[in-house]
Amino acid sequence: MFTHVHELQFEAKPDAPDPAFARRFQEVLGGKWGEMTVAMQYLYQGWNCRLPGKYKDMLLDIGTEELAHVEMITTMIGRLLDAAPMSEDDAKGKTLKAEWATSNPQHQLETGGGGYPKDSNGVPWSGAFVTASGNLYADFMLNATAEMQGRLQVARLYHMTDDKGVHNLIRFLLTRDHMHQMMWLRAVEELKADGLDQVPVPAAFDLDQEHDEFARLYVHTSDGPNAMDGAWAQGEAYDGSGPITIEETPRAHGDRPSLPPGDPRLYGTPPVDPQTLLQRAKDLL
Amino acid sequence: MFTHVHELQFEAKPDAPDPAFARRFQEVLGGKWGEMTVAMQYLYQGWNCRLPGKYKDMLLDIGTEELAHVEMITTMIGRLLDAAPMSEDDAKGKTLKAEWATSNPQHQLETGGGGYPKDSNGVPWSGAFVTASGNLYADFMLNATAEMQGRLQVARLYHMTDDKGVHNLIRFLLTRDHMHQMMWLRAVEELKADGLDQVPVPAAFDLDQEHDEFARLYVHTSDGPNAMDGAWAQGEAYDGSGPITIEETPRAHGDRPSLPPGDPRLYGTPPVDPQTLLQRAKDLL
Amino acid sequence: MFTHVHELQFEAKPDAPDPAFARRFQEVLGGKWGEMTVAMQYLYQGWNCRLPGKYKDMLLDIGTEELAHVEMITTMIGRLLDAAPMSEDDAKGKTLKAEWATSNPQHQLETGGGGYPKDSNGVPWSGAFVTASGNLYADFMLNATAEMQGRLQVARLYHMTDDKGVHNLIRFLLTRDHMHQMMWLRAVEELKADGLDQVPVPAAFDLDQEHDEFARLYVHTSDGPNAMDGAWAQGEAYDGSGPITIEETPRAHGDRPSLPPGDPRLYGTPPVDPQTLLQRAKDLL
Amino acid sequence: MFTHVHELQFEAKPDAPDPAFARRFQEVLGGKWGEMTVAMQYLYQGWNCRLPGKYKDMLLDIGTEELAHVEMITTMIGRLLDAAPMSEDDAKGKTLKAEWATSNPQHQLETGGGGYPKDSNGVPWSGAFVTASGNLYADFMLNATAEMQGRLQVARLYHMTDDKGVHNLIRFLLTRDHMHQMMWLRAVEELKADGLDQVPVPAAFDLDQEHDEFARLYVHTSDGPNAMDGAWAQGEAYDGSGPITIEETPRAHGDRPSLPPGDPRLYGTPPVDPQTLLQRAKDLL
Amino acid sequence: MFTHVHELQFEAKPDAPDPAFARRFQEVLGGKWGEMTVAMQYLYQGWNCRLPGKYKDMLLDIGTEELAHVEMITTMIGRLLDAAPMSEDDAKGKTLKAEWATSNPQHQLETGGGGYPKDSNGVPWSGAFVTASGNLYADFMLNATAEMQGRLQVARLYHMTDDKGVHNLIRFLLTRDHMHQMMWLRAVEELKADGLDQVPVPAAFDLDQEHDEFARLYVHTSDGPNAMDGAWAQGEAYDGSGPITIEETPRAHGDRPSLPPGDPRLYGTPPVDPQTLLQRAKDLL
Amino acid sequence: MFTHVHELQFEAKPDAPDPAFARRFQEVLGGKWGEMTVAMQYLYQGWNCRLPGKYKDMLLDIGTEELAHVEMITTMIGRLLDAAPMSEDDAKGKTLKAEWATSNPQHQLETGGGGYPKDSNGVPWSGAFVTASGNLYADFMLNATAEMQGRLQVARLYHMTDDKGVHNLIRFLLTRDHMHQMMWLRAVEELKADGLDQVPVPAAFDLDQEHDEFARLYVHTSDGPNAMDGAWAQGEAYDGSGPITIEETPRAHGDRPSLPPGDPRLYGTPPVDPQTLLQRAKDLL
Repeated sequence: MFTHVHELQFEAKPDAPDPAFARRFQEVLGGKWGEMTVAMQYLYQGWNCRLPGKYKDMLLDIGTEELAHVEMITTMIGRLLDAAPMSEDDAKGKTLKAEWATSNPQHQLETGGGGYPKDSNGVPWSGAFVTASGNLYADFMLNATAEMQGRLQVARLYHMTDDKGVHNLIRFLLTRDHMHQMMWLRAVEELKADGLDQVPVPAAFDLDQEHDEFARLYVHTSDGPNAMDGAWAQGEAYDGSGPITIEETPRAHGDRPSLPPGDPRLYGTPPVDPQTLLQRAKDLL
Repeated sequence: MFTHVHELQFEAKPDAPDPAFARRFQEVLGGKWGEMTVAMQYLYQGWNCRLPGKYKDMLLDIGTEELAHVEMITTMIGRLLDAAPMSEDDAKGKTLKAEWATSNPQHQLETGGGGYPKDSNGVPWSGAFVTASGNLYADFMLNATAEMQGRLQVARLYHMTDDKGVHNLIRFLLTRDHMHQMMWLRAVEELKADGLDQVPVPAAFDLDQEHDEFARLYVHTSDGPNAMDGAWAQGEAYDGSGPITIEETPRAHGDRPSLPPGDPRLYGTPPVDPQTLLQRAKDLL
Repeated sequence: MFTHVHELQFEAKPDAPDPAFARRFQEVLGGKWGEMTVAMQYLYQGWNCRLPGKYKDMLLDIGTEELAHVEMITTMIGRLLDAAPMSEDDAKGKTLKAEWATSNPQHQLETGGGGYPKDSNGVPWSGAFVTASGNLYADFMLNATAEMQGRLQVARLYHMTDDKGVHNLIRFLLTRDHMHQMMWLRAVEELKADGLDQVPVPAAFDLDQEHDEFARLYVHTSDGPNAMDGAWAQGEAYDGSGPITIEETPRAHGDRPSLPPGDPRLYGTPPVDPQTLLQRAKDLL
Repeated sequence: MFTHVHELQFEAKPDAPDPAFARRFQEVLGGKWGEMTVAMQYLYQGWNCRLPGKYKDMLLDIGTEELAHVEMITTMIGRLLDAAPMSEDDAKGKTLKAEWATSNPQHQLETGGGGYPKDSNGVPWSGAFVTASGNLYADFMLNATAEMQGRLQVARLYHMTDDKGVHNLIRFLLTRDHMHQMMWLRAVEELKADGLDQVPVPAAFDLDQEHDEFARLYVHTSDGPNAMDGAWAQGEAYDGSGPITIEETPRAHGDRPSLPPGDPRLYGTPPVDPQTLLQRAKDLL
Repeated sequence: MFTHVHELQFEAKPDAPDPAFARRFQEVLGGKWGEMTVAMQYLYQGWNCRLPGKYKDMLLDIGTEELAHVEMITTMIGRLLDAAPMSEDDAKGKTLKAEWATSNPQHQLETGGGGYPKDSNGVPWSGAFVTASGNLYADFMLNATAEMQGRLQVARLYHMTDDKGVHNLIRFLLTRDHMHQMMWLRAVEELKADGLDQVPVPAAFDLDQEHDEFARLYVHTSDGPNAMDGAWAQGEAYDGSGPITIEETPRAHGDRPSLPPGDPRLYGTPPVDPQTLLQRAKDLL
Repeated sequence: MFTHVHELQFEAKPDAPDPAFARRFQEVLGGKWGEMTVAMQYLYQGWNCRLPGKYKDMLLDIGTEELAHVEMITTMIGRLLDAAPMSEDDAKGKTLKAEWATSNPQHQLETGGGGYPKDSNGVPWSGAFVTASGNLYADFMLNATAEMQGRLQVARLYHMTDDKGVHNLIRFLLTRDHMHQMMWLRAVEELKADGLDQVPVPAAFDLDQEHDEFARLYVHTSDGPNAMDGAWAQGEAYDGSGPITIEETPRAHGDRPSLPPGDPRLYGTPPVDPQTLLQRAKDLL
């Protein structure tokens, strides 16, 4: 259960409106790697966590904080949209004129000057962006990634404006994305130390079931000359199970597939005599 | 540029048809973490890579291999759909009867007995599943995650069938997802060793711009009693920049936001005297 | 069954082309609250209506009229796109130059100069926008809302152009959205008067099943000081069933949830001894 | 800014697992009219509200409560998924056998036994479901509708299970949807009483701009004999502006549209001599 | 402008309810190749047609007829949903028991027993399914295809039920899809005869701009031994412009691409000395 | 199984960056008719093809070639995005200034300067764009159409830039789309010649099942005076089965539909006495 205070976690005041930047800022609100995604992802992971204790508790802590980030960015976008021109004529003689062309029409038509759960092109946020698999190792890795992708986008946004107030919030977001990267990476280490999982994830699946001849095989399917210069294609495998080998020329280990004739009632193009088939299909009616 | 051979990378022959499993197998073909995603993700990352050499070459190697995985699973699904009942009556007295209820109607109506780029509920694969950010550290972390989420789903699928032929292919997929996990994790290490990036990603953004008071602060927004028992909330921060501190009771560091009255031409509910506003809006017409 | 005449319900002739406005006009054609939505929503509600007579007949009347609105806006968009510049150079020295930057590229690439069922950012109209629940009270309330949201957007569009011809059609749309608001609100009243439903919708569900202690309880989860100044938090409840009470400090009425360990075959992170679990999962293979 | 407690607002414990019902319960979690929608919709409306005071404060109260509903339903779904069969064989001899056929495969493959932001068919929740227009009248009407549609779906769910624990939570949801219906309807009345808006919404748009001849005209486009028996087609209009009139046979008030020839560079099918056009297009190259 | 009569174009009465078939029938209502698509596609093509006369008039004729098909299928689905069981218990002892497992939960939860614009898996119809390109040749070819794909799906549906009433409607749909296939193919021929377009579409683009060495070249990128046995790889090209030639071993005609270093403000992984780059990015702040 | 070489099938080098054109070029990469669609469509058709031999082999040839087109356009977009301005200020004094306004923000925020599988408005490519029906006639017709729609869009793109390098690639694409149109049309002819299918597709469905009175009937539902001037409404039908007839005034051949009262547990608006119904629903609880 949640409670809310009106004060923001951090200040969200631009020095001046900027509808073009408002459009761009939507990316880290409602884009695939935006705050909607991390807030919902961590909360669903927390709610679904079947391991009581520190991991579950931490997930709900960070997820709840991310809701505050959704709130701050939405507030900032609302302020960036003040006084936005509604037409080219309206923009004339205003410093915001050029802004008109590159702003998001729905910021006026749909929201009347507010942020919403869509990306920088106005494509709606999708519930498919949330992953809560029940496996904490795989999910914490994704969470660390999400903070990296998110921080990367915020760092790019930094260079799309000179507004001191916007920079102030961006600097806060960069800081928290930094902290959260560290937390998720630590949590991955702790899962390993606690013996809960390890590479290959999920470790509980019996490795004897794997086809060992493909387990450390680098398959060189493209002709890039340097592909095997990295540690991923040399020496001992990451899990210490043996040496990596190379399939220099990729080989097919399976047959040419041939599918049997389909059910005539599906009217696929027949691999058998069509007259016969025609008759069979008609007979069925 | 690509070339293709008809032989499969590995065998994809079930012992018997199973339309219910065919529906489930779609998840690792056209779901968010399926083979369509990793094939396209690695290829786009490779094509967009602005750093010539080993990383780019490796991306295109693995991406090209994943296309072969798309092909194998599609072939397997086609074979699993042979002889699927078309109605309840049709299913009577067949071993496939129960299958009818839990199969995917589009496997007959749309594809006439074949795999397609949709998930296990028939929701289409989306280009939004692909991330190619230009930052290899963030992307390799995601790739490692994708192999974990993918291997997790394939491991779950293992228990949804007893078919030896299907198990054989699943065991191959588990093996390759294992190998690929190791490769992406090694590649992350190598990026660090090559001095190309590090936590916090992207490292090239000047850390002095961050708000240091929030840089190692654990914010305890939920009341889980064990949230701070993990290494993520204790001792030195992951990047060695100083000790983690705790905000036991979360504090707001910003004001209560108040948005100015909107443009009357947007017809939002007005914070000023409505009669005045009404008149102003009318005057504008 | 439908018949069609080529004449439009109302004139749809702009004074001059305006590709930037054409992009914006798409919102009320193919956006969530656009004419595609109301046309399809009213028709599906009409076709699915299980109560013969005035309500069903009226739904089909208005739904059929909305198809004419789809047609008029599409026609207007086609005319607004005449002579649109195809590149920046092409736009030079034309009054339409600035338009180029803010127009929709698909209006040339995809439609060759015509309207289509997408919104002002080019996001496709979705069948999920249509609601036809079978409950006329809930649906008529939604229909009234749709006319309000639609009229709001059209009113905003009015200020995005000075074109007299466009204004003429916009004024027609505003007029009909006004008329339709009145019709749906009357229809809601009539449903009540006819004894067919009432608040709480659906009224046929036995109120004794409700938890009475929560039935008139205002829960103050946020710290806004004025939240309880409205009639919604004071005096008798809207349905006359008793006085509203306040939960000033929100209380949890349920336990801390704890989920049992998952099936080991799902490879979630285990709440039991991992070695044991590992063994159990392996034994299963 | 939000804080969270682990205790639930209300109990969410089923008497027994039921994966088939878990699939159905997703509708009111991640469907168009589910708790994700109302939580996000009220919060965005609150954050974007430009009128400080009671309305904004109330929006944030109810939005924050709805987050607790998201949490309860997710928890319930997690519990309903315990011990779900993973295959037909697995289901044999269990009371859950029939459940297998009608459950959601992603409840195992993707979430490992947990709720997620998708609907009862596994279609992801969309940010497009959220409307926050800046006009409180239109939005409160939608909110009232959302509570009606939501309560209707919960009432239907009641009859899809006999589980006492599930019924207990459903009864709580029905109760709160009842309370919230009353609150939004009161809020609409209060907006009117406060002179902030009225029918036609938005009232601030100058009515003189409307085409009065269409302002109270019922257009009888379908041949339903009873369409005009309702109050919507008789007597004084809802806003008291005059009597309703009927267009018994719908008339076109516009011309047959004729679009000019397109730009030859768009290669539409030409309305002029094709040879001439062919030459013109070639000349352009 | 449209008018509507309540009578259906053809009878839509099943002999008995069948919720499982109702789910499947949705495919040809709201699927990619369903009646929603063809109705909207032909109408948008007609409205956008810039060539007055027979083609435009015919498009609006067929588009309007397709609206009647939407209506009939929706009506049929409503009737198929009568008396559908709401739970497994409810289904006991009824002939509809097995139906329960394979029906669509939204047919009860969302529509209360009616058809809606979604496909057989409940995925919403999308405006992206509509193509109206302005080029009649390309569009008529698509329309012919749509009638083929649609007729194929209806033919498959025929075998999913024995219901005489459903068969009666299906036979009507098959008949009209047959007629419409013939009409669109005739229309393609007439466009050619009228000199309006021809292969390659669009013919107005100057063929001299093409790279002639690739204009009749069959590229053998896969190792299928029979690929070149067809007329597509032999003799004179379809347009009579010369003989087809074969590139037996596919050759690259372009260089290995190498992208320049990205803007350091985008924080991509750098192809230049990272320390230098780090400094440059910091200097920018 | 695939292999890859780094060299491109054709050169993809622009003379100069152009982010506005990069946005537009996305349409033929990730739009409905773009290279992602044809590559995936032909490969899935090939993999699912149940008729071994020339058709299957040819599908895999062309599908594999289309992957090279995806690669070339992605490469071209990456190069067009070099040096793109990140803000209005940044654009000042640069020839790329105007470009800023009409570029795609995600080309910087999401991809850091690269192409991705979305259309020219940033809407993700969808797996629903792929059709592989199992019926080669219907699919080859669609493939021919796809090449026409694709070539049409590329021809339009030609006029959106003067860049010689871009033109060079566009000319290659136009050439291959021309060749592929010819191949698919030949393949349709060959299917007919081989007796595998014919109009009406699918021909194997027994024509005696059709309602002959509707099989050659032109239904004149719209009042366009020239609709019946085409060959589609005159003389012998396309398949030679008899003369076309005209239904000048469209007639309903079915009854006015009337749906029975719904299940009271669905709480639809009742067609029977509401008090009775209310009681029945309550009794059920």
